[in-house]
Amino acid sequence: MSITREIGAHYTPGKGTLFTVWAPTATQVDVVLKDNDKIIPLQQEAFHYWTALSEETGPGARYTLRLDEDMERPDPASHFQPDGVHEPSAVVSHADFNWTDKHWKPLPLEQYIIYELHVGTFSEEGTFQGIIEKLPELVDLGITAIELMPVAAFAGSRNWGYDGVYPSAVQNSYGGPEGLKKLVDACHAAGIAVVLDVVYNHLGPEGNYLNDFGPYFTNKYNTPWGKALNFDDAHSDHVRNFFIQNALLWLRDYHIDALRLDAVHAILDTGAKHFLLELQEQVEHLEQQLGRPFILIAESDLNDVRIINPVEKGGFGLAAQWSDDFHHAVHALLTSEDSGYYSDFGKLEQLQKALQHGFVYDGLYSEHRKRTFGSDATANPARQFVVCSQNHDQVGNRMLGERLPQLVSYDMLKVAAGLVLLSPFTPMLFMGEEYGEENPFLYFVSHSDKDLVEAVRNGRKEEFSAFAWQGEAPDPQSEETFNQSKLQRTYEHSEKHRQLRDFYKALIRLRKSAPALTRPDKARLHVAADSHTQVLHLIHSGESPYLYALFNISNQPQKIKVVKEVGAAWKLVLHSDENRYGGAGIALPQE
Amino acid sequence: MSITREIGAHYTPGKGTLFTVWAPTATQVDVVLKDNDKIIPLQQEAFHYWTALSEETGPGARYTLRLDEDMERPDPASHFQPDGVHEPSAVVSHADFNWTDKHWKPLPLEQYIIYELHVGTFSEEGTFQGIIEKLPELVDLGITAIELMPVAAFAGSRNWGYDGVYPSAVQNSYGGPEGLKKLVDACHAAGIAVVLDVVYNHLGPEGNYLNDFGPYFTNKYNTPWGKALNFDDAHSDHVRNFFIQNALLWLRDYHIDALRLDAVHAILDTGAKHFLLELQEQVEHLEQQLGRPFILIAESDLNDVRIINPVEKGGFGLAAQWSDDFHHAVHALLTSEDSGYYSDFGKLEQLQKALQHGFVYDGLYSEHRKRTFGSDATANPARQFVVCSQNHDQVGNRMLGERLPQLVSYDMLKVAAGLVLLSPFTPMLFMGEEYGEENPFLYFVSHSDKDLVEAVRNGRKEEFSAFAWQGEAPDPQSEETFNQSKLQRTYEHSEKHRQLRDFYKALIRLRKSAPALTRPDKARLHVAADSHTQVLHLIHSGESPYLYALFNISNQPQKIKVVKEVGAAWKLVLHSDENRYGGAGIALPQE
Repeated sequence: MSITREIGAHYTPGKGTLFTVWAPTATQVDVVLKDNDKIIPLQQEAFHYWTALSEETGPGARYTLRLDEDMERPDPASHFQPDGVHEPSAVVSHADFNWTDKHWKPLPLEQYIIYELHVGTFSEEGTFQGIIEKLPELVDLGITAIELMPVAAFAGSRNWGYDGVYPSAVQNSYGGPEGLKKLVDACHAAGIAVVLDVVYNHLGPEGNYLNDFGPYFTNKYNTPWGKALNFDDAHSDHVRNFFIQNALLWLRDYHIDALRLDAVHAILDTGAKHFLLELQEQVEHLEQQLGRPFILIAESDLNDVRIINPVEKGGFGLAAQWSDDFHHAVHALLTSEDSGYYSDFGKLEQLQKALQHGFVYDGLYSEHRKRTFGSDATANPARQFVVCSQNHDQVGNRMLGERLPQLVSYDMLKVAAGLVLLSPFTPMLFMGEEYGEENPFLYFVSHSDKDLVEAVRNGRKEEFSAFAWQGEAPDPQSEETFNQSKLQRTYEHSEKHRQLRDFYKALIRLRKSAPALTRPDKARLHVAADSHTQVLHLIHSGESPYLYALFNISNQPQKIKVVKEVGAAWKLVLHSDENRYGGAGIALPQE
Repeated sequence: MSITREIGAHYTPGKGTLFTVWAPTATQVDVVLKDNDKIIPLQQEAFHYWTALSEETGPGARYTLRLDEDMERPDPASHFQPDGVHEPSAVVSHADFNWTDKHWKPLPLEQYIIYELHVGTFSEEGTFQGIIEKLPELVDLGITAIELMPVAAFAGSRNWGYDGVYPSAVQNSYGGPEGLKKLVDACHAAGIAVVLDVVYNHLGPEGNYLNDFGPYFTNKYNTPWGKALNFDDAHSDHVRNFFIQNALLWLRDYHIDALRLDAVHAILDTGAKHFLLELQEQVEHLEQQLGRPFILIAESDLNDVRIINPVEKGGFGLAAQWSDDFHHAVHALLTSEDSGYYSDFGKLEQLQKALQHGFVYDGLYSEHRKRTFGSDATANPARQFVVCSQNHDQVGNRMLGERLPQLVSYDMLKVAAGLVLLSPFTPMLFMGEEYGEENPFLYFVSHSDKDLVEAVRNGRKEEFSAFAWQGEAPDPQSEETFNQSKLQRTYEHSEKHRQLRDFYKALIRLRKSAPALTRPDKARLHVAADSHTQVLHLIHSGESPYLYALFNISNQPQKIKVVKEVGAAWKLVLHSDENRYGGAGIALPQE
């Protein structure tokens, strides 16, 4: 185990605030209390941790850290940046929030039906409070978990969240620490788990002062964001600790149920104990301390089962990972798009394979990547793969941010919904998907540095060059781009949108009630693809009653033969073409 | 499995020579036959492999590869560079060598007693033939395997071998392909296995034209030698194949028994299937084809058991790896040196731990590395760790190249010998160690590029800066430096040196005859360190009769108590202080 210790400003009622910062290159470190300009000199302890207890400092106090009597900086481990990323940090109390979720029973991963949302654009207000007010609609929809895109403090007020620079501070414009706690508490009261997206692979470009404190970065590796964070070079114990403390903070002090770890392939660590394994161990340690289970989910561009394999098999032991292959197989098939990474997909058999195993590229040569890619996921339980037909990346990284309704027919939206929600995997929706939101989800930022804004604009254009998109990209820096990305909740007045939402509700109800879906068994899943009719057969034959789903990918009615082996006594439980789901009402046999 | 195919010039008697080269950026590739200036245009096949069969081309033919009718280059997969690294390649026949080792029985790793040697300095001639002539002395010593420092073609005639630029070509000045085959054949006739040191983590700085052929390197990672070889980026299948074909060549066509993989920590691959795992799989495939076992041994600076763990445990399945910890524990204790990486060692208990488990740093914080380092090796069999008290790196990377006799007393040389040869691990000696060779083993090169020579000189100085060495480093480029590093074989006329060699012979005899050492069992090994007397007790209590070794690290006689648990019926089998081993003859109880 690497060196671990709490960092940042830790307030204990009746005792005061303990300040701790790792600053290996400084010869003197002080806390500057901004309310009264008082200087608190910190004492150096082992491994260059600097610390002092200030009895008089309590919640709300603004402070900076001063290095060598010269450079004043916000606290890298700040819990709150009330005035933005360049201004003083604030002491936060985690002792006096009035939690009401004592009886909350954390859900096992098999029960997760995740709803990914972006705080700034989910509601008109763009705040945690805005989400709380909409919780009844999510309860009505039936989802069991929300996944918040990153809430770590970023520059300005508009950002997807991946430009966060204070991993442990809650974005001020969203409602800060108090706002997040209220949201989690309200979710638990509504029976909804909370997944938080956290970014341990890089820091945003504006307001990141880590380099002033120590070797947080290494020259060993290069990433799309420049030098890699230092997870395995000299002094890496303290960088690892910086992020591990962050994970523990959310789970312990914010009652978060699960973390979604952004782009773990960019957490570069070739040492004998990978950071993710250590993170999992530390989270398990917290589980034991608190008697509460936590879930770690990786986003990974590696198709590597090592991330989710148990430790005995040499894995990192994480609960689950995203399957981009599933998304791409669905998307390329339904849209016929074949540029960029979609060039690797588009065949019905690939969707069949994704549904059966989780990965399509499991050691196959990828023409797009120009290399053999991935590992065999056959032995991994279905719950270990989070699947979707839309998410912030797949929508938002399109030049025009089109959601699926802009790209495929209404009927195919229902096919996509069924593929995700009737799959054996852990399903995830992207906010607004359930009613066919037609607003785009665009890329937006609100940096204050002009050169950076220009660099972001150019960087986006380069990213799009692999795709054959025409026209001009919306300006990421413009507030209009942000506003265009807000949900319209059209289901409240559009029948088609309401009917689509009803179909999602029906699918979710089915998923929750059918034992074959609540306890899916990949080994007893039968997936057949009929290339003649373009119909995909999905048969869950684990728990009884068995579930048989048919997906017609062709754009016309098809006569199909039911797969024989599965017996004959079938009852129709859901039919997407019914009028109430906006369909034409083509009849199917009821039994 | 990645894409695999044979590359280079492949001669088949009666058929001709098949040329194959991977050149993804070229639009035309030709073979230029230098003997008659004939041009053979190559045809492009899948994945930009260019190929043609030349019926008229046979062994010895000189050729270059011409890219886009412009650039003539030697073949990156050349099997022979008769005139050096900048000159044409030559076709080699692997069909007509008269092998006499049909009855050679490959040794299991447990029986390896390795003797590391450098072809250029082991004999006066500095050739494979020079080694053949000295084989009787190695047979007399009792070692069972020689390990050749790299023989891949390098610039000039003097080099350790790690500057090789044609991994599959045998250095001309050593005797070329024919010379190596004769050596391996002679070794097998003498009952000696051959380990070959191969370098897959970088190419040397002079004569390396890989970049002209394709993306052999990647910007993802940085290494001490610059950009990393491309093991996991776009097109990496072909770079992996380049090195895999190299491994198969040595094992198949040169009858090499085992490969020692140089510095595998610098083979940077974060993909789902690590190159080392794929290499092991391909070697196992060859084992099945040929019905002959092969051994892969890694040199690694990671202390990561993943490299040697079985595939079921998520490992790469390699047979063994070097334990630098063992060396450093012995060296620091015996020399009291504490600069550079020796600062992490020097305690008797560390040697105890190294002997017991293989690693000292198995998840401990390393003050020198400034990070928590290594993984637990308790569960790994002893044979999986190759140990030594001297090797080319540990001697040669000292500024003055001093061997152990320059640093410790004669008595301590015997302690070091005993620690290595009575350990449960796979022992390795460094040429000349067995009689206390007093010539240094210095760093030497023979580049033709003046700037490069200067860069090497400065690079060496920087490397030494972590150590407190005084004075001036010998000039690596000077022939004198090379000549000073040759073995003197002083045991032929110096009694002390002969006696030391006799002691090594006795230890090796004991190692071969004692069941406790031929079938060592880490789990039934008892190691105790008495800090009061500075005596280390090593008790093999696996196979009977048990073996009890005592190492007196103090510089004076000690009265010791035998560890109780192991019973009483002991018989003295070897005593280093006997007169015939150059000792003072202090008597020990015979039973």
